[in-house]
Amino acid sequence: MKISQEIEKKLTGQWFAFLQEKIVEEFQNLEIEFSKKKKNKISYFKKKFWEKKDPKDGGGQYYILRNGQIFDKVGVNHSTVEGMFQQNYKSNIPGAKKNQTYWASGVSVVAHMKNPKIPAVHFNTRFVVTSKKWFGGGMDVTPSLKDLNEKKLVHKNLKLVCNNNKKSYKNYKKWCDNYFLIKHRGETRGIGGIFFDYLNKDWEKNFKFVRDVGISFIDITKMLIQKKRFLKWTKKQKQNQLVKRGKYVEFNLLYDRGTKFGLNTGGNIDAIFMSLPPDAKWK
Amino acid sequence: MKISQEIEKKLTGQWFAFLQEKIVEEFQNLEIEFSKKKKNKISYFKKKFWEKKDPKDGGGQYYILRNGQIFDKVGVNHSTVEGMFQQNYKSNIPGAKKNQTYWASGVSVVAHMKNPKIPAVHFNTRFVVTSKKWFGGGMDVTPSLKDLNEKKLVHKNLKLVCNNNKKSYKNYKKWCDNYFLIKHRGETRGIGGIFFDYLNKDWEKNFKFVRDVGISFIDITKMLIQKKRFLKWTKKQKQNQLVKRGKYVEFNLLYDRGTKFGLNTGGNIDAIFMSLPPDAKWK
Repeated sequence: MKISQEIEKKLTGQWFAFLQEKIVEEFQNLEIEFSKKKKNKISYFKKKFWEKKDPKDGGGQYYILRNGQIFDKVGVNHSTVEGMFQQNYKSNIPGAKKNQTYWASGVSVVAHMKNPKIPAVHFNTRFVVTSKKWFGGGMDVTPSLKDLNEKKLVHKNLKLVCNNNKKSYKNYKKWCDNYFLIKHRGETRGIGGIFFDYLNKDWEKNFKFVRDVGISFIDITKMLIQKKRFLKWTKKQKQNQLVKRGKYVEFNLLYDRGTKFGLNTGGNIDAIFMSLPPDAKWK
Repeated sequence: MKISQEIEKKLTGQWFAFLQEKIVEEFQNLEIEFSKKKKNKISYFKKKFWEKKDPKDGGGQYYILRNGQIFDKVGVNHSTVEGMFQQNYKSNIPGAKKNQTYWASGVSVVAHMKNPKIPAVHFNTRFVVTSKKWFGGGMDVTPSLKDLNEKKLVHKNLKLVCNNNKKSYKNYKKWCDNYFLIKHRGETRGIGGIFFDYLNKDWEKNFKFVRDVGISFIDITKMLIQKKRFLKWTKKQKQNQLVKRGKYVEFNLLYDRGTKFGLNTGGNIDAIFMSLPPDAKWK
């Protein structure tokens, strides 16, 4: 049991490390290709490492690209951390009452686009070990302009990856809508996607599913960008995007569990707030 | 006892209503005077009413001025609400275990200045009645540029109003520094000010103190504005202000009790988020 758990940590950790590099590579290529076509200066990802106060509790590395021609700001974060939950936080986490130690590894990505016609995308997959162990993750999409065809495209692809892995797209879609509800506004953050957590039954199958969601995230995001990157936008559309980003900030700071997990486990501020947009407006 | 409580509610409610109008008048005059000097178009406060779902639970009115020559955004909010605390929220509030009903009235102001050399100011005073009753409030100042003389001026005046009312400036200053700590960054929101709560001993004296803090807020803010309104600023200083505003947003959404109180008691979203800056940046 102990040995298999070590192997599971190793394999998931390696997958997340690979996926991070792959996402960065693909996004960088998009940025280079588009900037060349537009004869613009090329923006590059910068890589940063961080460690927890006690380095043996882990840390992570994140890539961030700013002021690009495709991306206003995109962060690709991979971290592996361990430690003890704080007294007042452990009751939120399954299996943390018995045993307060945790180990968690994951990849998370948030991309805020320059073109307000291209939606912001968010993706995360993670493997968590307390006295229990489980996979969680998902992806969701936040346009600032309505586009029903785009919504269909996103959900068609997410349904496919769920079906291929015998997971319930319907449940995960619902979970996503519930999770990304901006309660005080009574509206969802965007057009949803999928969200899943506590997948603990069949490790092999769940690991496969989590890998497939990662690949789908890359495919879907590339499609979203390629469809609209040449479209022109108005000043008003950019303003609407900034107001939408304001609501994104509200969600992330008021409700997001990932943000709370990070702040409560001594994570790196810049890596945690990588998800915040580069700028936002409130009406 | 019941009758005196009704009178206390009446008197505080009237004071808050008066103070709101007074602040709006003073700030509007500043805006008009400065806009005329600069030969610019004059921006005016707009007044909005809101009611809780069940109007007998109260509501409020807020004034908001945007895109002014002095103020990028300033909101002056007065609300009087009553109702029952939600099950999961009442444990945060003194006297709400026995009896879940509450009545609360107050004024709050947040001003985000156009000129990054003039600090943002925040002020609030309130009277809350559960099975207990108390006054609370304070004011604090958030510059984006260091200015020791300005800091001294603010604190000198706040010390004076505390001393005049036999209140401990030292304790209230400390309370303010602790309250406006942006925990995850290990830095305070600004240069502090005073913060006090649960003042329940001598109603007459506390009411007088709360009124004096309101008047001081107007005086101090006018001084801060008049000292610096003609100073020129650089693009970089404006950018620094926007980054500072990002941290302001973090504090308000992650930690601020007023925001949580509003969201947990069915307050008006626009009135609650009046405190958010018009725009913000994250590095």
